[in-house]
Amino acid sequence: MTTGTEQEKTEPMKSDIEIAQQATLRPIREIAAGLGLTEDDMEQYGKYKAKISLDVCRRLVDKPNGRLILVTAISPTPAGEGKSTTTVGLGQALAKQLQDKGKKAMICLREPSLGPSFGMKGGAAGGGYSQVVPMEDINLHFTGDFHAITSAHNLLAALIDNHIHQGNQLGFDVRRIEWGRVLDVNDRALRQVVIGMGGVANGVPRESRFDITVASEVMAVLCLAADEQDLKQRLRRIVIGYNADKQPITVADLGAEGSMTVLLKDAIQPNLVQTLEHVPALVHGGPFANIAHGCNSVIATKTALKLADYVVTEAGFGADLGAEKFFHIKCRQAGLEPEAAVVVATVRALKMHGGVEKSDLATPNAEAVERGLANLSKHVENIQMFNIPAIVAVNRFPTDTAEEIAVVRDWCEQNGLPVALSEVFTKGGEGGLGLAEKVLDVLENRPGGLMYLYNESDSIEEKIGTIVRDVYGGDGVTFAPKAKTMLARLKEMGYGTLPVCMAKTPYSFSDNPNLRGRPEGFTITIRELRLSAGAGFIVAITGDIMTMPGLPKQPAAMKIDLTEDGRIVGLF
Amino acid sequence: MTTGTEQEKTEPMKSDIEIAQQATLRPIREIAAGLGLTEDDMEQYGKYKAKISLDVCRRLVDKPNGRLILVTAISPTPAGEGKSTTTVGLGQALAKQLQDKGKKAMICLREPSLGPSFGMKGGAAGGGYSQVVPMEDINLHFTGDFHAITSAHNLLAALIDNHIHQGNQLGFDVRRIEWGRVLDVNDRALRQVVIGMGGVANGVPRESRFDITVASEVMAVLCLAADEQDLKQRLRRIVIGYNADKQPITVADLGAEGSMTVLLKDAIQPNLVQTLEHVPALVHGGPFANIAHGCNSVIATKTALKLADYVVTEAGFGADLGAEKFFHIKCRQAGLEPEAAVVVATVRALKMHGGVEKSDLATPNAEAVERGLANLSKHVENIQMFNIPAIVAVNRFPTDTAEEIAVVRDWCEQNGLPVALSEVFTKGGEGGLGLAEKVLDVLENRPGGLMYLYNESDSIEEKIGTIVRDVYGGDGVTFAPKAKTMLARLKEMGYGTLPVCMAKTPYSFSDNPNLRGRPEGFTITIRELRLSAGAGFIVAITGDIMTMPGLPKQPAAMKIDLTEDGRIVGLF
Repeated sequence: MTTGTEQEKTEPMKSDIEIAQQATLRPIREIAAGLGLTEDDMEQYGKYKAKISLDVCRRLVDKPNGRLILVTAISPTPAGEGKSTTTVGLGQALAKQLQDKGKKAMICLREPSLGPSFGMKGGAAGGGYSQVVPMEDINLHFTGDFHAITSAHNLLAALIDNHIHQGNQLGFDVRRIEWGRVLDVNDRALRQVVIGMGGVANGVPRESRFDITVASEVMAVLCLAADEQDLKQRLRRIVIGYNADKQPITVADLGAEGSMTVLLKDAIQPNLVQTLEHVPALVHGGPFANIAHGCNSVIATKTALKLADYVVTEAGFGADLGAEKFFHIKCRQAGLEPEAAVVVATVRALKMHGGVEKSDLATPNAEAVERGLANLSKHVENIQMFNIPAIVAVNRFPTDTAEEIAVVRDWCEQNGLPVALSEVFTKGGEGGLGLAEKVLDVLENRPGGLMYLYNESDSIEEKIGTIVRDVYGGDGVTFAPKAKTMLARLKEMGYGTLPVCMAKTPYSFSDNPNLRGRPEGFTITIRELRLSAGAGFIVAITGDIMTMPGLPKQPAAMKIDLTEDGRIVGLF
Repeated sequence: MTTGTEQEKTEPMKSDIEIAQQATLRPIREIAAGLGLTEDDMEQYGKYKAKISLDVCRRLVDKPNGRLILVTAISPTPAGEGKSTTTVGLGQALAKQLQDKGKKAMICLREPSLGPSFGMKGGAAGGGYSQVVPMEDINLHFTGDFHAITSAHNLLAALIDNHIHQGNQLGFDVRRIEWGRVLDVNDRALRQVVIGMGGVANGVPRESRFDITVASEVMAVLCLAADEQDLKQRLRRIVIGYNADKQPITVADLGAEGSMTVLLKDAIQPNLVQTLEHVPALVHGGPFANIAHGCNSVIATKTALKLADYVVTEAGFGADLGAEKFFHIKCRQAGLEPEAAVVVATVRALKMHGGVEKSDLATPNAEAVERGLANLSKHVENIQMFNIPAIVAVNRFPTDTAEEIAVVRDWCEQNGLPVALSEVFTKGGEGGLGLAEKVLDVLENRPGGLMYLYNESDSIEEKIGTIVRDVYGGDGVTFAPKAKTMLARLKEMGYGTLPVCMAKTPYSFSDNPNLRGRPEGFTITIRELRLSAGAGFIVAITGDIMTMPGLPKQPAAMKIDLTEDGRIVGLF
């Protein structure tokens, strides 16, 4: 990337990896010590990464929690919003603001998926001067969490096929096995496969699939688990298939939860790293934001709330998906109480919501920004519907004009909405001081208190209906025949009141990705419902949901290399 | 296991995992400091594991090497020989012997594969009081090396299918793609699969396979590489498939070696752990002993030789396979100079080679032991053919009688062969002091000097012929039609003089696993030849070689669990 604030920069800004490679990191044990952690509380993975023991949370159970701030965004566009960057930058800015007051700030982020790094260029650990580091490690194997999830997921798959091969005592209907296999690689050829070929010794032939690891229910389970034993109980509940009478067969029926838990015993511990400005960050878990809830682990967030006074976290996609699931699924299951939500917008993305094509984004167009505010407006309303105060962050790009920025600022001020310009990409925490001030002001003066939009006892249809009408602004919901059948089956099986995890295009409030801005008069079609009994939700699928990405024509992998002096080039 | 020396033990001995869990480990940085390593030379993975930088070897290039001792064995039987246990125990015994002299001993072992741990019970990190620890970590994810190999292997696979999907510029013949995928799990249903199903968006349908990770050529390559750049060059040379003109297509043609090297940059560093008696051990790499060379990494062995005065290492299977490949492939490629080889035998296994059934092994039978010596005798002859002095270690079991042990001892003494009883399983290093003395005596008084049995310039047929006649004691070699065709093609492609990596049953010198002892008058049939151009050898396959194990009817996975106080049970 070569962005930078127009006024100050004449040379192109350094790339993310250049900035990260030139950074001086502090030993992670110093960062940990700053949080009051001892060597016994952690396991170091090299000098700059550590896993934090779950005993820390158990020991600090009576300590009051810090204050939780969610970073979310308008509907994403190819122009980008910079949500992770804002999260890191806001954390850095809060740390700056608070250092004199003896207060601590911390960040919680998802772990990036390895597979996509070799497809399209670009990491997922913030950007510019607001990154978590060591960014190459974080974007590659990190502390092995995703590999552990891959192992646990695929062990279960092997146990299922072995069970069938050895006599199928549980009576799996081989046409109704829901559990696929996973790999952390973009590999379209594995989306649909036939396994068990080659005769009797190789098991029973059947159709199956591979998803990318972040789409595994084990990932969602790990990210929602309260501790190791809750993890095991959730794993037990996973429905892996059905017998000939269409009765569910679970991991508990197979008896695989103990082995899976053993494989996940380290992965469940949150990973401590630092930002470029040495602010502590827990980077842990990364469930797919489309078929899962798309937030970092509950354990990481809860641990951070015990260690710091202010915790900034993020949720995937725009607020219609990310924040809604963060509130209804993660916060509700874990009893978390967020007190403010930052909605990130960019002038460029607002222009796209206002009807401008990607190729015209550099042309000043205040009217388009104005039109695009409809999208921001609805997201802010939604946040407020949950009784959480919203703050708008305008993530500045070098092409933004003063007039365009003024459009957003004026609109916010007219609507009594706190707003701040964020320049954390080019300036680090310094560029987020204004935003941090607004956030602190809101926490001080605008008491919220999370309210849910639906009752736990509502039916699946009622829950989906509420989300579609209240959050998306749609007219109603249609259930496709397949979804209707599954609705009835879910009720029969006793899963009729699980929370709903919406799988919808992030590009529009509707299920049509081309309807930007704030569309109206649409209905949402639920094509399919999938049970994630371990995670504890029903996935409501509204379109083609890709659970295994493919590689592009020119994969980034072809340019990535390790130089003779040991540096990584071409990645990010 | 409940073995122990009869005379001293009345209670059953503790299990391997009990012993390991009750051990007090030293912080790995203390172990490293004892080897003269600083914190900059290593990356800690928790308190008891560390990766050692390749810079250590580069820095110590002019330091004289320590002395290298190979531990090998007679032909394995279900009765077990205890090769890894003897390796660890001998290392511990040498450390005891040498501590007054200011000399250091070290151990090099392979990393165990994760998959099989969930099939049959049993780890692979030694046993009893001669184990490397932390054994649970070593047997589970350890430092993530195998996961990195899985990632690099499967990235290449995805890039191949993506290349074909995006237009197939290199002209892959989809029927002649040699590169499969790998997973570190016992999953027979993945042995033969059809991928790319489901229409245009999912790529081109074709048959393929999954092997277990230890069977990946990436594993063999990593274990033979001299450093990061040699790793990359070896990866470049891997032949992944053929075009319609049957010309080979390599990783270099695809341009994937940089990304693969980046994924392997940590995995290539050897892992430092300790034995139960705090002797430093490098546990690194684990190529399948059937389709690869079956030894720990060259880098680990070379690093150990720079850090210690005596280095004990092992090679997979019996000496006909393990030692032959260790000498001809690993030592020859890396310029290693082993100076002694310990051949491990047990009375129980000798009885089986003498014709006793497994169910009768507890019955004293000195005659059967005598008959079984034919197997030991041939292995010792083979070691001596390489001009390496051999020492026989009798790994004692509680059921062994004094008369049976005397049979082995007397035979060795009559043949001028150093022999020692090893009780390292029950007594740790103390139980191997006699063996250590013999080893040190041999190093002092029996100068060897590795000689190879074939010339590098010999043809593949000549190399195989030499191994079959000299090492196996067979009458000759037959090449099946498929192997003959491949022989011609290998010559055409310029691979006609690569070393040979034999893939043969370990249970017999012949290719018939039922011919125990020292069979005669047999010929070996080469069914197939496979090219491992990155590893730098031709695999000569003589039977059904399983590259993806399956799970048994009652997998160990069903009994493995994590207790409420965080202990692993049921594993090993």
